[in-house]
Amino acid sequence: MNFVKNYQCTLCHKVFEARADLLTCPLCGEKGVLEINYDYDKMKKIVSPTYFQNNSDYTMWRYLPMMSVEDTKLLPTLKIGWTPLYNTPHLGDILGIKNLYVKDEGLNPTASLKDRASGVAVIKAMEIGQKVIACASTGNAASSLAGNAARMGLKSVIFVPKRAPLGKLAQLMVFGATVISVDGDYKDAFNLSKAAIDHYHWYNRNAAINPHLVEGKKTVALEIAEQMHFQVPDWVAVSVGDGCTIAGVYKGFFDFYQLGMIDKIPKILGIQSTGCAPFVEAFKQKRYLQEVAENTIADSISVGIPRNPQKAINAVSKSQGTWIAVSDEAILAAMKLLGKTEGIFGEPAGTASVAGVKQAIQDGIIKSTDTVVIIMTGNGLKDPANAVKAAGSPIIMKPNLQEFIQYMEKKDKEVSI
Amino acid sequence: MNFVKNYQCTLCHKVFEARADLLTCPLCGEKGVLEINYDYDKMKKIVSPTYFQNNSDYTMWRYLPMMSVEDTKLLPTLKIGWTPLYNTPHLGDILGIKNLYVKDEGLNPTASLKDRASGVAVIKAMEIGQKVIACASTGNAASSLAGNAARMGLKSVIFVPKRAPLGKLAQLMVFGATVISVDGDYKDAFNLSKAAIDHYHWYNRNAAINPHLVEGKKTVALEIAEQMHFQVPDWVAVSVGDGCTIAGVYKGFFDFYQLGMIDKIPKILGIQSTGCAPFVEAFKQKRYLQEVAENTIADSISVGIPRNPQKAINAVSKSQGTWIAVSDEAILAAMKLLGKTEGIFGEPAGTASVAGVKQAIQDGIIKSTDTVVIIMTGNGLKDPANAVKAAGSPIIMKPNLQEFIQYMEKKDKEVSI
Repeated sequence: MNFVKNYQCTLCHKVFEARADLLTCPLCGEKGVLEINYDYDKMKKIVSPTYFQNNSDYTMWRYLPMMSVEDTKLLPTLKIGWTPLYNTPHLGDILGIKNLYVKDEGLNPTASLKDRASGVAVIKAMEIGQKVIACASTGNAASSLAGNAARMGLKSVIFVPKRAPLGKLAQLMVFGATVISVDGDYKDAFNLSKAAIDHYHWYNRNAAINPHLVEGKKTVALEIAEQMHFQVPDWVAVSVGDGCTIAGVYKGFFDFYQLGMIDKIPKILGIQSTGCAPFVEAFKQKRYLQEVAENTIADSISVGIPRNPQKAINAVSKSQGTWIAVSDEAILAAMKLLGKTEGIFGEPAGTASVAGVKQAIQDGIIKSTDTVVIIMTGNGLKDPANAVKAAGSPIIMKPNLQEFIQYMEKKDKEVSI
Repeated sequence: MNFVKNYQCTLCHKVFEARADLLTCPLCGEKGVLEINYDYDKMKKIVSPTYFQNNSDYTMWRYLPMMSVEDTKLLPTLKIGWTPLYNTPHLGDILGIKNLYVKDEGLNPTASLKDRASGVAVIKAMEIGQKVIACASTGNAASSLAGNAARMGLKSVIFVPKRAPLGKLAQLMVFGATVISVDGDYKDAFNLSKAAIDHYHWYNRNAAINPHLVEGKKTVALEIAEQMHFQVPDWVAVSVGDGCTIAGVYKGFFDFYQLGMIDKIPKILGIQSTGCAPFVEAFKQKRYLQEVAENTIADSISVGIPRNPQKAINAVSKSQGTWIAVSDEAILAAMKLLGKTEGIFGEPAGTASVAGVKQAIQDGIIKSTDTVVIIMTGNGLKDPANAVKAAGSPIIMKPNLQEFIQYMEKKDKEVSI
């Protein structure tokens, strides 16, 4: 049982009866991404401060009554969610804000936020008896689908652009997925996945197509709110590719606001790389999105044609947030800064948000007195090559103490106290 | 405050007063690894079933009254511990046992069990005002020390053998450690670290030297017991390098047994690679340990001269467990098997335990009715190159549906339902 009221098209705004096999608007087609609406009055009777006080399930499934999953007998999945929200004062000092937090989504079972969507996807597929589930992905959605499908005994078919980094490919192969490395960019991988899914009638885990996935992703916002004792921050910063994660972040806060659990929705800062910034460019030029080249090291957000544009645009505009783009150099510098100051290792798409917050402070968008949460979307171990690019390689030395002492004397004195 | 009674040398068995600056036996020197003894009668007054029922700290620090940390004002660290213990029926079916569990330590903040030791190490260093902390490591201890030190504002100096895999090196560099890649094997890295620590008087995080680290590692056993509602398994399988982790596993169960929280200590299965198996060889030949070559892909357990032999030997003998060695091929096959059946991605040193359990079942050591827990010591993302070796690379294809359909027709039909 759940509290889904109906589905609504984000394009034509028409409302449809909730049906497990309905993934996009029957009138608008694939671009008619659906929003799942809930009956908040009914939900309120279950979801209250007391509900959370008495809930000992420290995974994303503690938010089950706020989600669109129906058959709870299919649970549990891998241990998804309830990732740490770290207070990060060392980083805050350097960036010039007092109350800074980092939500480390790299500690999810396949090491990214995408597990929240894939956990829902596998359950929704099983609800309707599907045995094969497929998606196109820049990498994280793919590896999380492969891992979560393996755990639940489903098959997965994955389409990735050829550039996907080593860590993510390794996960896919170990999880036993059928993996197609598409000789092209993300757009090509997406199109081939769509054609294949249509042909074979597999379950579709493409986040922009499948509205249930945003309902999984929104649990990151629910956790942030609960971990902050329902005193939500002024800003939440998150990087944007297809637009589904930022849509989930907004939806989570929106739900809690509707339930009266929080008294405002945080402003959402949408961050892209200057090498692939269709949302930022459209926002600045006050126009519709246009296709752009995919030219950034932040592979998870290297999306030239975002597939969930309307929900992403809404997330920023309705929360009164804004959009910002940062360079790949700033992303790598932020990776090193975050690691060095707080011991958190983020992948480029995650540390883009650190760079974005830094930029927003410099631009006067974020004030030094604001409370800010950065969502670190994935683990840096997914992409070790870029990490070494960011932070350098170690010195190689013979096992000789004198040689070591000489090296330390030459090196910055601060460490040899 | 804690319940430490005294320190006792594992070689000469003499007892010493607990002192923060005492790390090894004053009489036996470096080889006199100390055991930390507790006053269990006093501990019992705090640590009871009620204590755990009312404890909402879901990190390893929930076991603080059972540990040797003194200054609790220094907490919190990164979010270490309370990793999932998965029931793994798909894998169990294939191995031929009904009750199989995997403890996924790869979900610790720097993606290995070693965080449990490093979390303690940084606190112990801070207790005595040390600002620099150093260790030699095959990789995981290093990256966990670097991350945990960065989080607490300490400096770290790390000595790794040149073979350390990419993921681990990337972590070290991003966490801002001073990293020395020693042109030699682990033995050479260990010796240089010892010389440097003696020279600079840095805090020593080498697990075999520092008895507090085993007290951190033992929390993995405490969690296993608690997650199984204090009905402990018949066997716990864990891979062995220096011998500190297996020592911690035994110590955790020993402590709970002394407190009357569990009614037996599980048999401990110590697993090594045939390419570097000093414990297994000594056990089989009923002789003392001898130095062996370090010749396995399981870098975390590639230790030719184990530095904590006595505690490791005790763990197996006192628990009435046994030792087993598996080939690198078996380790890679187990990596793929675990990923495919359960969606868990382990590094070679972790999947060695899966291979070890498989072998132990075939050898009749583990019975099909036994309950078994496998400790997955680290995340496969640490070592993507070996994962690709285990599971292969994806096929590369043009974005063309016909080509894809042809590929699927040729491929195993099972996925194209």
